[in-house]
Amino acid sequence: MNELRVGMVGHAFMGAAHSQAWRAVNRFFDLPLRAHMTALCGRDANRAAAAAEKLGWASYETDWRVLVERDDIDLVDICTPGDTHAEIAIAALRNGKHVLCEKPLANTVAEAEAMAEAAASAPGVRSMCGYTYRRVPAVALLARLVAEGRVGRVHHVRAAYLQDWLVDPATPMSWRLSAERAGLGALGDIGSHIVDIVQHLTGERITGVSGLTETLVPERPTVDGGTGQVTVDDAAIFLARLTGGALATFEATRFATGRKNALRVEINGSAGSLAFDLERLNELEYYDASRPSGENGFTRILVTEPDHPYLAAWWPPGHLLGYEHGFTHQARDLIEAIATGVQPRPSFADALDVQLVLDAVARSHGEWIPIPERRP
Amino acid sequence: MNELRVGMVGHAFMGAAHSQAWRAVNRFFDLPLRAHMTALCGRDANRAAAAAEKLGWASYETDWRVLVERDDIDLVDICTPGDTHAEIAIAALRNGKHVLCEKPLANTVAEAEAMAEAAASAPGVRSMCGYTYRRVPAVALLARLVAEGRVGRVHHVRAAYLQDWLVDPATPMSWRLSAERAGLGALGDIGSHIVDIVQHLTGERITGVSGLTETLVPERPTVDGGTGQVTVDDAAIFLARLTGGALATFEATRFATGRKNALRVEINGSAGSLAFDLERLNELEYYDASRPSGENGFTRILVTEPDHPYLAAWWPPGHLLGYEHGFTHQARDLIEAIATGVQPRPSFADALDVQLVLDAVARSHGEWIPIPERRP
Amino acid sequence: MNELRVGMVGHAFMGAAHSQAWRAVNRFFDLPLRAHMTALCGRDANRAAAAAEKLGWASYETDWRVLVERDDIDLVDICTPGDTHAEIAIAALRNGKHVLCEKPLANTVAEAEAMAEAAASAPGVRSMCGYTYRRVPAVALLARLVAEGRVGRVHHVRAAYLQDWLVDPATPMSWRLSAERAGLGALGDIGSHIVDIVQHLTGERITGVSGLTETLVPERPTVDGGTGQVTVDDAAIFLARLTGGALATFEATRFATGRKNALRVEINGSAGSLAFDLERLNELEYYDASRPSGENGFTRILVTEPDHPYLAAWWPPGHLLGYEHGFTHQARDLIEAIATGVQPRPSFADALDVQLVLDAVARSHGEWIPIPERRP
Amino acid sequence: MNELRVGMVGHAFMGAAHSQAWRAVNRFFDLPLRAHMTALCGRDANRAAAAAEKLGWASYETDWRVLVERDDIDLVDICTPGDTHAEIAIAALRNGKHVLCEKPLANTVAEAEAMAEAAASAPGVRSMCGYTYRRVPAVALLARLVAEGRVGRVHHVRAAYLQDWLVDPATPMSWRLSAERAGLGALGDIGSHIVDIVQHLTGERITGVSGLTETLVPERPTVDGGTGQVTVDDAAIFLARLTGGALATFEATRFATGRKNALRVEINGSAGSLAFDLERLNELEYYDASRPSGENGFTRILVTEPDHPYLAAWWPPGHLLGYEHGFTHQARDLIEAIATGVQPRPSFADALDVQLVLDAVARSHGEWIPIPERRP
Repeated sequence: MNELRVGMVGHAFMGAAHSQAWRAVNRFFDLPLRAHMTALCGRDANRAAAAAEKLGWASYETDWRVLVERDDIDLVDICTPGDTHAEIAIAALRNGKHVLCEKPLANTVAEAEAMAEAAASAPGVRSMCGYTYRRVPAVALLARLVAEGRVGRVHHVRAAYLQDWLVDPATPMSWRLSAERAGLGALGDIGSHIVDIVQHLTGERITGVSGLTETLVPERPTVDGGTGQVTVDDAAIFLARLTGGALATFEATRFATGRKNALRVEINGSAGSLAFDLERLNELEYYDASRPSGENGFTRILVTEPDHPYLAAWWPPGHLLGYEHGFTHQARDLIEAIATGVQPRPSFADALDVQLVLDAVARSHGEWIPIPERRP
Repeated sequence: MNELRVGMVGHAFMGAAHSQAWRAVNRFFDLPLRAHMTALCGRDANRAAAAAEKLGWASYETDWRVLVERDDIDLVDICTPGDTHAEIAIAALRNGKHVLCEKPLANTVAEAEAMAEAAASAPGVRSMCGYTYRRVPAVALLARLVAEGRVGRVHHVRAAYLQDWLVDPATPMSWRLSAERAGLGALGDIGSHIVDIVQHLTGERITGVSGLTETLVPERPTVDGGTGQVTVDDAAIFLARLTGGALATFEATRFATGRKNALRVEINGSAGSLAFDLERLNELEYYDASRPSGENGFTRILVTEPDHPYLAAWWPPGHLLGYEHGFTHQARDLIEAIATGVQPRPSFADALDVQLVLDAVARSHGEWIPIPERRP
Repeated sequence: MNELRVGMVGHAFMGAAHSQAWRAVNRFFDLPLRAHMTALCGRDANRAAAAAEKLGWASYETDWRVLVERDDIDLVDICTPGDTHAEIAIAALRNGKHVLCEKPLANTVAEAEAMAEAAASAPGVRSMCGYTYRRVPAVALLARLVAEGRVGRVHHVRAAYLQDWLVDPATPMSWRLSAERAGLGALGDIGSHIVDIVQHLTGERITGVSGLTETLVPERPTVDGGTGQVTVDDAAIFLARLTGGALATFEATRFATGRKNALRVEINGSAGSLAFDLERLNELEYYDASRPSGENGFTRILVTEPDHPYLAAWWPPGHLLGYEHGFTHQARDLIEAIATGVQPRPSFADALDVQLVLDAVARSHGEWIPIPERRP
Repeated sequence: MNELRVGMVGHAFMGAAHSQAWRAVNRFFDLPLRAHMTALCGRDANRAAAAAEKLGWASYETDWRVLVERDDIDLVDICTPGDTHAEIAIAALRNGKHVLCEKPLANTVAEAEAMAEAAASAPGVRSMCGYTYRRVPAVALLARLVAEGRVGRVHHVRAAYLQDWLVDPATPMSWRLSAERAGLGALGDIGSHIVDIVQHLTGERITGVSGLTETLVPERPTVDGGTGQVTVDDAAIFLARLTGGALATFEATRFATGRKNALRVEINGSAGSLAFDLERLNELEYYDASRPSGENGFTRILVTEPDHPYLAAWWPPGHLLGYEHGFTHQARDLIEAIATGVQPRPSFADALDVQLVLDAVARSHGEWIPIPERRP
């Protein structure tokens, strides 16, 4: 079988998740290409070597510029902070490498636009942004049911991504709290997920927003005993309208005490409703308004049946999947797209759409900001 | 025992709920006054007589002006649509009657201001607005825990009141869909509840809002076979800031398919979180951040213990209460306030605060509207 | 309207619940007879007088023998401990009074047989045993769905009634812990409910059992500072077979730490499943096996719709009922049965069937005991 | 690093799960030995070769007798039906191979006894039975909390393993429905899990049982168009007592319509309660009776914190694990045990204890069967 030779840049949390995906994908899915974990790239040679050994990569590099030029690499998988995405991705694309880039696509709209343009100008090369939660089976089922018209016209969307790891003021600074490295805070890191998921699930665009952001704890200790300035938002809330007229509320926060990783989305339409919570990622709640009122209610679908998205490859009904499986499904879909020459989604253009919304929210301060349509 | 002689205006849904409260209150609570269901008032004599018989009132009137002047009435209980509240309440207060007025207090800020002024100018007379959900035991427990500092500084509030009885475009017109009778739509009817409950639970005021409202189905059949214009909102969403700096999201809608009466409120603070859903009104979810992380999570408190608010009067632990009990607790607290000469809450002034927020949301169209402080 | 003049014996927990039912029933339901709370009976004159005043009864008696002979009493409502049921009920029936008797019907099979015989021999007189949970709307809906064939052939039943009020060894003695007064312990008090509800819901009889009972804390303090012997079971578990062949498990305990009043029943059949928990008494879980597997699961029915049993009389959808409403529904159904001359259920004969099962469990000690069919 | 060279017999459902464990274990856990997937064994050469390729084994064999004698194999991992366990395991042990054997240990008590004896007589060789659910983090946390005394004296256990894949009479015959291959039906396949988990979690033994088993659909179509006899139970229910006196109920069934893989266990003790459901395997419900009653209830612990068992190796808080992770944890613990020379649990002796209970249930027919203590 032909191989898809992967070079991965970055080897922290995301690097581990992506490694597990490349390692497992061909063991469960029958695919036209076999992923080969060719090289891992990290700036520190010792740490890169150790990571390659631990995570199972055949070699390592310390300079991504070298990696993106290696002849034995077909795909560059970017798992670094947002400030490096544009440079790496554009170089890789220019070298004819397929690219999988972690989300958010970039730290600024300008960078994202340049990346989308580079992607559009690279014939025969596939690029994809890692909004992995689209590939959680329950989310994919949700998308399928909406696409089949099961909720009818969308009236309401409520989306929230709730975490609590910054509630304690003693939690130290990290690159995620620096505007220079991360661009935005909760808004960019987790708010981006709910913007992508809502536009994906409804098949509609956000046409305007009104939002508030807040840095609740502006100074934090650094690991070296000093004090660091938090230069990004800790939390963001915003209202939006969708192209079809629906009203939507959004919230992204790292201060929702007790909520660990609660990405929640609920869609209410003229024919039904669907609700999802990432803290119960194997479940989907579905209300079908066409059922008799005397026996109607929200149905808790345990999304582990063979006719659910991706599930035929895994275990019998009732046997749960976890967080990492979304990455395996992402790898599966990307391999399929590369092998068949189809544009994978979310494309860099899709991810630019997310960026336009985040940028508007960051500028809103409670006022209404229309979202421009991206240039075709 | 001395009696508190009640005259009730209106005898529909709210009239039935209030009647059950007056009927039951002294059977479960030991109180200094006994409620007497003296007179019911309705415009149609036959229907008023039948309602008085069915609901257990000793007499009936057809003109509220007569009722508010009857010597044998101590308290006027107003259960009519919002356009009549101001006139009846002010007349009753001027006649020295205590007043319990259904929510929202009025259809306009001007009316609400006049009512609050009349209440302030009626010495020895008690007035109260019927934001009954404050008296659901789980909500009262939530308020107690917040007041005890159990959530610490409030960072986030998310409040929603979700119903679905207007999703079907064939659902006919009613007075609740007419701006003339109801003032506002979902925003006034159910949005008012969540504004009141958030200000009550946090002990903070909303200082500004940005909101959107929408009439999703603008025309509906009338019961006589014609077509009526819906002149109020079907749904409203808004962002807010509280005096303490917290970020809050609000949603009030009659189009949340599958959600029947889901008044939900969640508060995240520096020391803990609390969450409530009226569809499970005997439960409160509590996260206490001071517990060890290895055994922490949201605790589902079944609010049926004797040391929970109001519960000692009812059944053994684990025996649930229902919707109507909030009204009985409201009657209990109002009787206590009248007997002891204390201002009951929510006062008309508290209810005016709600009105100021609703008015700002209705005018916002996505732009930021600061909420003026009511004059002291 | 004609009256149904009620005399109630006993005025503790059950007396308060029954009083609320008689007080409310005609206020919500249109019925051919109006309940009149004529007399309450208690052994201590002062306490009986105070109870009559508090609970709203027009008079009181101190001897039930007098009550059951009063000409102005149509129905005797027995709310006393089990050791007195047989004597009072049989006397009332012989005097031509209708009888509502709290559960379990009696402390022994012999007493229950005598009562069932007395009931059968009293022409024109109605008798009913107070297995009230049949009248919780969700339970009534469950029964309706089973009767309509929605679960098909019943394969499994699991029933449990879990409380925890005896876990603390310092909880004092009460009449409920004395074999002389209560007959059985958890088995009789709450086990009886699940036996009745399972036979009622399935329409089948239990044909044999194997059970274990246990007294986990055999001595407890008495209120006067002494020590009392617990002479009943604290907990009972048993297996059973139903006439249709289904396998059933039962558990009744006052030692299920953290479970306050969890009467749970689940039925699995060839066509579907239904599950109920009294701690969420407004909900019913329904799995309809005929739905497509890709969107199937348990549907949480919020049993508050007008087409649900009893609900049209109450509040709009989504407005919950509580524990006490089952008693109001029981009063409603009993009044209807008396007015129309139909035998109300559960009859004394139905309640005798329960008694036969409890008796077998108490004698089983882990061995199989077939349940005799009661004589026709 | 030294290797642990694994040879796996069988490559169906369990073979895939074990393969994923051997593949992933060293990528997440720092261990003294590295697993090497040396050889897979299956009777059909083509299918074995394809499986080795798909699942990632370096070679394959078609005769387990060859496999257990290969010098380059350190551990034999038995994933075949129960009728072959004894022969393979005993041969492997005699050859000085470590053994991991799928559950239930054997089809008969005699076989299990022979295996336990062979394990005890193989010095320096480790053996373990694959009751994997012990290694679900929430179950491991449950065990830890019980061991710490957090539930106090155990009063009640209720355990159920509910599936529904046989409800449809058209579901075809399989080896799992044949007494010859599988020994027992639901009782052996899934009932064994709950017997093991209860004895493990409580640290107590079952001292006697009374049970019923049933074959609800005795004939099923075969894949070749014929009809096969189901010679095992479809469902089993039983009562038990534990050494400490607790009362326990058990149910294992493949006919619980709508329940896909609901292994549920709840323990009620004098100091608290714990409840688990495999359909929500990342959650544990904990009731701590020492908390104030006014704020007490079951706490839903999301078992994804770094101080939870096994979790430090995986993802940040709130990121869920799935079914397969239990196998990885099993591999981790077995590797540690082999490297450090400690007996891993569950040992073959532990698994024999399970077998003794299953055997008693199968013979009970509703009568009480004491469980003999296994010979030391």
